Amino acid sequence: MRNPQLNEKGDLQHLLNVEGLPREHLVRILDTAASFVGVTERDVKKVPLLRGKSVFNLFFEPSTRTRTTFEIAAKRLSADVINLNISTSSQSKGETLLDTIDNLAAMHADMFVVRHAASGAAHLIARHVAPHHHVINAGDGRHAHPTQGLLDAYTIRHYKSDFSRLSVAIVGDILHSRVARSLIHALNILGTPDVRVIAPQTLLPTGVAQLGVRVFHNMNEGLRDVDVVVMLRLQNERMKGPLLPSAQEFFKCYGLTAEKLALAKPDAIVMHPGPMNRGVEIDSSVADGGQAVILPQVTFGIAVRMAVMSILGGGS
Amino acid sequence: MRNPQLNEKGDLQHLLNVEGLPREHLVRILDTAASFVGVTERDVKKVPLLRGKSVFNLFFEPSTRTRTTFEIAAKRLSADVINLNISTSSQSKGETLLDTIDNLAAMHADMFVVRHAASGAAHLIARHVAPHHHVINAGDGRHAHPTQGLLDAYTIRHYKSDFSRLSVAIVGDILHSRVARSLIHALNILGTPDVRVIAPQTLLPTGVAQLGVRVFHNMNEGLRDVDVVVMLRLQNERMKGPLLPSAQEFFKCYGLTAEKLALAKPDAIVMHPGPMNRGVEIDSSVADGGQAVILPQVTFGIAVRMAVMSILGGGS
Amino acid sequence: MRNPQLNEKGDLQHLLNVEGLPREHLVRILDTAASFVGVTERDVKKVPLLRGKSVFNLFFEPSTRTRTTFEIAAKRLSADVINLNISTSSQSKGETLLDTIDNLAAMHADMFVVRHAASGAAHLIARHVAPHHHVINAGDGRHAHPTQGLLDAYTIRHYKSDFSRLSVAIVGDILHSRVARSLIHALNILGTPDVRVIAPQTLLPTGVAQLGVRVFHNMNEGLRDVDVVVMLRLQNERMKGPLLPSAQEFFKCYGLTAEKLALAKPDAIVMHPGPMNRGVEIDSSVADGGQAVILPQVTFGIAVRMAVMSILGGGS
Repeated sequence: MRNPQLNEKGDLQHLLNVEGLPREHLVRILDTAASFVGVTERDVKKVPLLRGKSVFNLFFEPSTRTRTTFEIAAKRLSADVINLNISTSSQSKGETLLDTIDNLAAMHADMFVVRHAASGAAHLIARHVAPHHHVINAGDGRHAHPTQGLLDAYTIRHYKSDFSRLSVAIVGDILHSRVARSLIHALNILGTPDVRVIAPQTLLPTGVAQLGVRVFHNMNEGLRDVDVVVMLRLQNERMKGPLLPSAQEFFKCYGLTAEKLALAKPDAIVMHPGPMNRGVEIDSSVADGGQAVILPQVTFGIAVRMAVMSILGGGS
Repeated sequence: MRNPQLNEKGDLQHLLNVEGLPREHLVRILDTAASFVGVTERDVKKVPLLRGKSVFNLFFEPSTRTRTTFEIAAKRLSADVINLNISTSSQSKGETLLDTIDNLAAMHADMFVVRHAASGAAHLIARHVAPHHHVINAGDGRHAHPTQGLLDAYTIRHYKSDFSRLSVAIVGDILHSRVARSLIHALNILGTPDVRVIAPQTLLPTGVAQLGVRVFHNMNEGLRDVDVVVMLRLQNERMKGPLLPSAQEFFKCYGLTAEKLALAKPDAIVMHPGPMNRGVEIDSSVADGGQAVILPQVTFGIAVRMAVMSILGGGS
Repeated sequence: MRNPQLNEKGDLQHLLNVEGLPREHLVRILDTAASFVGVTERDVKKVPLLRGKSVFNLFFEPSTRTRTTFEIAAKRLSADVINLNISTSSQSKGETLLDTIDNLAAMHADMFVVRHAASGAAHLIARHVAPHHHVINAGDGRHAHPTQGLLDAYTIRHYKSDFSRLSVAIVGDILHSRVARSLIHALNILGTPDVRVIAPQTLLPTGVAQLGVRVFHNMNEGLRDVDVVVMLRLQNERMKGPLLPSAQEFFKCYGLTAEKLALAKPDAIVMHPGPMNRGVEIDSSVADGGQAVILPQVTFGIAVRMAVMSILGGGS
């Protein structure tokens, strides 16, 4: 079976998942993103690469922040952007998902940015559309969030350069995190020798070790001598759920404090996909401290999304 | 009384209704649309005809799909587009409709695209504004949906050319359909000799025959030898209402199946304004079959809206 | 302490409040606005002053009308505009206001237009951001609405030229009105000798006289020989509240009728920030009469917002 993300010539047609993304495509996205970091710092933050293209933000579940990052990225590439909140739209009128997509495709949409609560929704759409349409997965269920994984990889490369010598720890709710999953795949593809996950047993997926990671339940052990600490967001609904005793308890065991961070390498960086729960998964002194690169992640995130869109759209 | 859609010089100032639209204006819209079909297939799908113009999408009732088509059309003409969902806005603050319009006009709006639950709302606004403002009716109550009627006419002309020899059947909920009404007027203006409506008595408006159509209650009779079959959407609320026994029953009598379609001419085309209820008014085998031109309708719809906007805006 | 609206060189960095705005900055905004009135009347209503800049409309409380005026102003300056309705977004995910701002700043936002129910929210954000970000207060609690105050001042200057000879009466719900507060400061800065407020005791803030205004409870006295009458909107929630007997009663005492307006100078102008409650604070014969300049206020409002944005953004 052909790689669902590539077209017949082996070019990137869709971005659905970091898993299965050939290394050269992943590296090309990071390299292209580097060229856009400069653009976003210019006075006129615009390039005409997608002029006259129509980008549709299809959000079947709301996510203002993610939608905003794609909207900005597309506008800085000079595309026309249409925001569609589909939950309040045709879906409630009894139309099937693929009929909705066919309709938008018939309006000559060039690119669909898809956020959906169901794992595999973006894949389904990608399999369905004609070769001149492009699909970007902006988060599907617990499955994948590839642009987040790529911006995390970009951030690590920016600060640490050589993946072949790195220890990376990912901490928190691995079970429900498409962010963790996409990052682990990116780290594997880039040849990171030591990827660790640190979480209570209840917040780990079964078979997590098959992803090529080392599992820790104790933060003091897991953080020892790592170069990168990635803290995950604890969703509000988990805090009251059966998987955890309480937010306070979680912070005590798995929240990142300055004391725990001291176990990592002195120049370790601290990442977080946002939005942060200060005092739950991360202490404010760390979030605002000198090792945090949480805001640069956001900046790089725009550049990575511009890179993905421009590569898919045929520019760059 | 002057035609409310024309200005003093006889130019098109507003698009409110297909009824009463002089034939030469209707044909000019279709001809102009033809030139835009090419634009939407280009790599850079943009022309500068409305650059610097402000188009306001005023949606007093929600309709993501219709709003999207106008938004895309306006952006491809390089206009600035402002989306206003008025139900959540000033209307609830006690302001009158015409005060709202006066305010937006004072912001130098060039064009209002109006969707409203009340029949005649677009006419009211058009009568009120100054001559340099333009109003497009994007659906008012059960009354009219002229751009839909025009895109249906465009589609029929595209596939069948000569209206003077055509038989067209419109099937389903004629009573509540502004789509049917606008199409019937367009077909009459273009000289279609045989326009049929097929529906149960409960879904026909009183005096429907005065629109110049032949009425059928039986699909097998009504579809015989037609060139065009237009299926209407059955609104969800009708399916449970007092006018119909059930959706299943409706499908049995008035749903379009391959078997029923075989009664039409072999080269008959099948149209539907969308969104479709598969298995209610149309069988999937027909919706996805070779005679369906439902997706081309969507594509032509963008071109027709670009044509209307560019003619009103003084371009083209 | 440095003026929070100015940067180290004394240039305008934020627009937070008319109070404390140095006179030369206020006059420069009005002068710049005058140059944009011409732009909005041109066929192509666009200038490239903010091309490639990103303007974020951050509305923590909904206000379609105000959001629309800033969106139009920004688009006519060729900026990219991102609308964020924050109440439905990260705030509900437990993120702090300043974390939200930091995130958007990291996306290289150039300008934040902030509407918030809490007085001082825009100031808080302005104090927090780096010097290359700009904050415009689009209304914070009962505190300030500086662009409204400026457009009111612009309107008065347009019709009356010389502030040093004017009598201005502001009528109605002064207590809850950020509009009144901003206008009073503007009139003081511009040297208006006679500013009056007319309201029942229950709708006046304590210590109102310290703003340099004369207080009237009787309209017939307060309106005598004024050059400008500014009617305030009576919020719906006040009409049923404990501060007022009824809307009818309010209209009888404080609604502007032709009869009462006759007490003002014959060439007095009538202003209202909108949306109007006809028959509550203003009679229709006055609202639609020859002395009303309510719609020109809207037109000038776009030009004033363009002026503020272009000055902050470094253009003009």
